[in-house]
Amino acid sequence: MNKVGIPKGMRDFSPEVMAKRNYIFDTIRRSFQKFGYQQIETPTMENRETLLGKYGDEGDRLIFNVLNSGDYLQKSNELAFTEKNSQSFTSSISEKAMRYDLTVPFARYVVQHQNDITFPFKRFQIQPVWRADRPQKGRYREFYQCDADVIGSKSQLNELELIQIFDEVLSNLGLEDFTIKINNRKILSGIAELIGKPDKIFDITVAIDKLEKIGKEKVFEELSSKGLNNEELNKLDPLFELKGDNRQVTRQLSSLLNETPSGVEGLKELEELLDYLENIDIQQAVIELDVTLARGLNYYTGAIFEVVSNEVQIGSICGGGRYADLTGIFGLKDMSGVGISFGADRIYDVLDKLDRFPEQIAQTPEVLILNFGNKEELFALKLLQKMRNEGIEVELYPDRVKMPKQMKYANQRNIKYVILAGSQEIESNALTLKDMKSGEQYKLTTEELIIKFKS
Amino acid sequence: MNKVGIPKGMRDFSPEVMAKRNYIFDTIRRSFQKFGYQQIETPTMENRETLLGKYGDEGDRLIFNVLNSGDYLQKSNELAFTEKNSQSFTSSISEKAMRYDLTVPFARYVVQHQNDITFPFKRFQIQPVWRADRPQKGRYREFYQCDADVIGSKSQLNELELIQIFDEVLSNLGLEDFTIKINNRKILSGIAELIGKPDKIFDITVAIDKLEKIGKEKVFEELSSKGLNNEELNKLDPLFELKGDNRQVTRQLSSLLNETPSGVEGLKELEELLDYLENIDIQQAVIELDVTLARGLNYYTGAIFEVVSNEVQIGSICGGGRYADLTGIFGLKDMSGVGISFGADRIYDVLDKLDRFPEQIAQTPEVLILNFGNKEELFALKLLQKMRNEGIEVELYPDRVKMPKQMKYANQRNIKYVILAGSQEIESNALTLKDMKSGEQYKLTTEELIIKFKS
Repeated sequence: MNKVGIPKGMRDFSPEVMAKRNYIFDTIRRSFQKFGYQQIETPTMENRETLLGKYGDEGDRLIFNVLNSGDYLQKSNELAFTEKNSQSFTSSISEKAMRYDLTVPFARYVVQHQNDITFPFKRFQIQPVWRADRPQKGRYREFYQCDADVIGSKSQLNELELIQIFDEVLSNLGLEDFTIKINNRKILSGIAELIGKPDKIFDITVAIDKLEKIGKEKVFEELSSKGLNNEELNKLDPLFELKGDNRQVTRQLSSLLNETPSGVEGLKELEELLDYLENIDIQQAVIELDVTLARGLNYYTGAIFEVVSNEVQIGSICGGGRYADLTGIFGLKDMSGVGISFGADRIYDVLDKLDRFPEQIAQTPEVLILNFGNKEELFALKLLQKMRNEGIEVELYPDRVKMPKQMKYANQRNIKYVILAGSQEIESNALTLKDMKSGEQYKLTTEELIIKFKS
Repeated sequence: MNKVGIPKGMRDFSPEVMAKRNYIFDTIRRSFQKFGYQQIETPTMENRETLLGKYGDEGDRLIFNVLNSGDYLQKSNELAFTEKNSQSFTSSISEKAMRYDLTVPFARYVVQHQNDITFPFKRFQIQPVWRADRPQKGRYREFYQCDADVIGSKSQLNELELIQIFDEVLSNLGLEDFTIKINNRKILSGIAELIGKPDKIFDITVAIDKLEKIGKEKVFEELSSKGLNNEELNKLDPLFELKGDNRQVTRQLSSLLNETPSGVEGLKELEELLDYLENIDIQQAVIELDVTLARGLNYYTGAIFEVVSNEVQIGSICGGGRYADLTGIFGLKDMSGVGISFGADRIYDVLDKLDRFPEQIAQTPEVLILNFGNKEELFALKLLQKMRNEGIEVELYPDRVKMPKQMKYANQRNIKYVILAGSQEIESNALTLKDMKSGEQYKLTTEELIIKFKS
């Protein structure tokens, strides 16, 4: 037999897994649409120049490049080949690359179609992305992203709606205890301003981000190694003593950061968001202000979101935030945007571990009509069509094979009932219905059968 | 501004187009599921060896290859580079290629997972495929295929169900006049046997396939240039005189091919299928036996299907057929399969030309709540949530900008109604509802508003 397999880090999805994945995607899509987000799709391949340089050097290395078609070597870079410079050679033989995320293609889309778009533009996108990452448990080279973004609006009402979407989707999926952590990048900037080192914001945030893992002492050690002196560190101290609910925390932050322009602005935005939150109903989410939340700091410029399940320890299952200038990379300035992303694979793992997938999503028929041969088939066909038209999930076994084989099929597919319609049963309009689990058998007319399964 | 664009032959799908595409995909998916087909997905990239050689030389050329990651030049084929042999060089720098269709990956899937699959296995798959074809009107380098196949069953009941799916999907999509053409490859073999030239089956079929376009005389000219003498051509003559309905045609074929083993077998299958068809209800389809139908003859071994719209001349909108040995290419023998494929892009064009897309699929809210500023927002927020929870498609304008700008947004997005909830309206619980088309205004309480839009 030939070797069969698929590239590492990639997956086949069998019907059982697909049904569960679709349940997640459909739930997300329903809320995106309910909140007014419009779906778009962008091509799998983008021009390489669109993607390169947008994700840092590491990102560039992880992008999958697509070879030019035809006699591409004619135009290849001989010097780069001789020097075995793969990176520079690639540019001469590959013009296209595969989508690395949904955000950069979205920015490209907005700039390209700006004259046809009515702003503020609320779009969602559910498509796979590809990364040549080292495959490991839970990390794949092909995976779906589920993103919703608003572009062209600075209002915190957008942040509010995105929090509502987190809450609704995860509640609808049956999660019972999860926390939506919120922060604002401007507060992080305020902290850097507070200690008089606005240029150290990156180091400060990276260190603070580790608080939960390594504790305050180690955070201070790291910061001191980055050049912060004791006086500066002391100014940070109250940050680690923040206590109470979100309102209490903002009050403490307020007195701490009231001299820092960024901090004041960040707190104003946060408090507006908290005001909004008090005026709506939240289903299951705990909403928690967390000043140590950073998430790709160089990217976000305002709100920052992260969602974690408190039932399964698996890291963040959703994220997001505001970026002041997403489309600037393609020349369209001053388009503020805010967006979120659902980590479908992690959510899948959480639901699987908690056994929260609904039973009825399995793609299996409820009942199988057994095949008794060419004469009985014609009766079975009519019965089949009648039942299907009533919305009953039913199949007719296609081949005229022995009963045990057909029964085995029903068992393996977990089909609950089989219908036996042999010539005698047909003649007397008394079909046999067999419960595959209990083994019990009933005699029913066609009409009774339809009524039974319709309900 | 930077140059923005996408690779040629590829497409962005805007919200309006997405809504129409989803309407088509959802309709197809619903019928696939109703008839018991189970969804799977396979990865975008397959190992190159899985795809190469499966689509002929021309196909191999059209496959998009993905460059290996990292310092791939270290392992590249120096000789091939020196000789500028792109094809052989590719093998040394690319292990993966992009899905060219859904059939070969499905065959690979079945072989790889054969121990977990219950046969007969009815699967469907709706995913994009990629071909480095020359882009032209209606032909793209990235497009979706919508395939359903049964594998592991030889029964003509499968052919019947696939015809039922064609009929149901296209009827549900609002097509009013379309023809499902059926044929059987064994009849074509019978014809070749009839004239004593079974080895000429390919030439004969290619020529007969052109009958409608070039007429009988030219078909005969072509066949004579391929080495058929007059006596042999005379034997073909009755084929072009077939008249009447499907049953009459099979009778004429029967007397014509009754000495050819393949012809007899093909007719037996066809007649069985016609028997089945007489026992079910067909919605809109005309079902027509067409012995000149060939469709990728080297591929199919039994039934052949093709669907054309009689309302718009655009070529075939669906196709399919039976292949005796699909998984043989990967070492699993004797797995007969039969499948169909919907041409979503062509169906889209047909519906668009006939203006048959339902109006209500547009992704636009029915009503917009205008934003009167920070105090009124809190009232609007609660109203918004109440209305959304009742299933009403409603949005709140996020930014506190002047009314004309908000009205312009409503107009551009074709939103039918706006709600004005200023401080006075809120106080008196008499909100203003404005019909954007007629310009008429009404005073309604919150409760009345909800009732109006709920119905």
